[in-house]
Amino acid sequence: MVDLALLGTGGGMPMPSRFLSSLLINYSGRKILVDVGEGTQVSMRILGWGVKSVDVICITHGHGDHIVGLPGLLATIGNSGRVEPLTIIGPKGIEQIITGLRVIVPYLPYEIEIIEDPKETIDLFKNNPISIDTMELDHSAPCIGYNFYIKRNPKFDVEKAIKNNVPKHFWNLLQKGNVGEEEGNIYLPEMVMGEERNGIKISMITDTRPIEEIKKFVEDSTLFICEGTYGDEDDLPKAIKNKHMTFSEAAMLAKAGNAKELLLTHFSPAMIEPEIYVENARKVFYNTTIGYDRMIKSLAFE
Amino acid sequence: MVDLALLGTGGGMPMPSRFLSSLLINYSGRKILVDVGEGTQVSMRILGWGVKSVDVICITHGHGDHIVGLPGLLATIGNSGRVEPLTIIGPKGIEQIITGLRVIVPYLPYEIEIIEDPKETIDLFKNNPISIDTMELDHSAPCIGYNFYIKRNPKFDVEKAIKNNVPKHFWNLLQKGNVGEEEGNIYLPEMVMGEERNGIKISMITDTRPIEEIKKFVEDSTLFICEGTYGDEDDLPKAIKNKHMTFSEAAMLAKAGNAKELLLTHFSPAMIEPEIYVENARKVFYNTTIGYDRMIKSLAFE
Repeated sequence: MVDLALLGTGGGMPMPSRFLSSLLINYSGRKILVDVGEGTQVSMRILGWGVKSVDVICITHGHGDHIVGLPGLLATIGNSGRVEPLTIIGPKGIEQIITGLRVIVPYLPYEIEIIEDPKETIDLFKNNPISIDTMELDHSAPCIGYNFYIKRNPKFDVEKAIKNNVPKHFWNLLQKGNVGEEEGNIYLPEMVMGEERNGIKISMITDTRPIEEIKKFVEDSTLFICEGTYGDEDDLPKAIKNKHMTFSEAAMLAKAGNAKELLLTHFSPAMIEPEIYVENARKVFYNTTIGYDRMIKSLAFE
Repeated sequence: MVDLALLGTGGGMPMPSRFLSSLLINYSGRKILVDVGEGTQVSMRILGWGVKSVDVICITHGHGDHIVGLPGLLATIGNSGRVEPLTIIGPKGIEQIITGLRVIVPYLPYEIEIIEDPKETIDLFKNNPISIDTMELDHSAPCIGYNFYIKRNPKFDVEKAIKNNVPKHFWNLLQKGNVGEEEGNIYLPEMVMGEERNGIKISMITDTRPIEEIKKFVEDSTLFICEGTYGDEDDLPKAIKNKHMTFSEAAMLAKAGNAKELLLTHFSPAMIEPEIYVENARKVFYNTTIGYDRMIKSLAFE
């Protein structure tokens, strides 16, 4: 199971009932954050999800509503006793932005590794691995979208182990990913493990216009989390001007990309009740949900 | 009347029921903020106090729990339509800190004037004037305390005007602070205005050890707002180590300074219910109140 929480679902400015953009992915005790808007720490505390195990922070772009909470969170993570390095991924210019913001938290008890504008897949964690891909979006600042692939380890296959003449005392070792050797024979994990199994793909796309490349990027996503800054179709001119999306535009991407589910977030502060516009998305892509602060979702492997 | 609101009363990290340090002073439609911790904007919005009329932001020091909310607030003020310049006052180094934080809000529709480490009284607003004094505190970063003097305009004095032979058609002009001239005679406001009247003095002291100089600085304050990071007397070693104060130390300053009222704020996140320690302050200085988020106080002129 992979657990997610929308820590904040607002765009622009924080509201009493809607903090600013942040998504938390929690898998096997390791946490990945996408964006750190104002209120992120408060939502984590309300949920009771500790900050010490935040290993990776992915920043979509350097606008305040996506990053203002970063220096405070880094300080709190420092106070939590973390000493292991922390990775921050972000678009072009992210290193300069972090350097600027760290003026108020110059000393931290852990190292920060910054990956700016990654062009290749980033593979995280040896056990329970997660891979991250990014794509360039179309916003008023350098902005990237994220895919998270949570791989599912293959099952132990007894028949295959017997067929490959693997001695029983090696089974456990190989199942854990190690290599065995005995009397000149080498035993590999793939000699006892079954077929690759489908993992989970989570896509996070905010802030952008609905460019063509997104369709391929979010293809077959288990969960496609997408900005829906404007619910009302009449706000399309605003969406175009401010380089955001309407609900129906997000839904068109979900449909074209054959996503399993669409979760909308990043609502304009002018939109008090995003729910009233949900049909604008559902008539294009039925399996659409309107996010809200501290909404939790658990995704199961197939 | 002067209205105040504690927008956040926490130190260290934001909590669900306690945002980080911020005080709002609202007088005659102009607003002064002291510190902008995370949650400041949300509290202002809950209170329904708009951001456009924030004219002055006083920063005590550059620690995250006092300044993280600044760039987001500056952006929201920009979106509110403000074009008038905004003044930021702070300790030594504040200009560099603001430059760093502004990496995420490089463009604002108004000018920011920064007054770093002021050594003289700052006089604000022509009508309904407020004066600001600062003092250097004893913390782990350059940190300053603030006094706000809200002057009370003298009353129009009919007898004095008659005694000084001021023609009636000049009374209104002089009352508004202007000078009149007729047939070689000069008429000044002080020829029609009564005695100076007592104003209101608000002192804000956070974060610091209780150094001797504070007593004189907060002398006769109408309201002395002071950090009380630790309520429990047993936490004195922590207060000394972290350069903060216990409730009783803050109360000793209030007593020595002959303040009228002490309002405690900036509570350690480890202290869930500051109220249970209030007697530690009251046995030293009786008129002590424990602050809480969005507590409003109105101070009347005598």
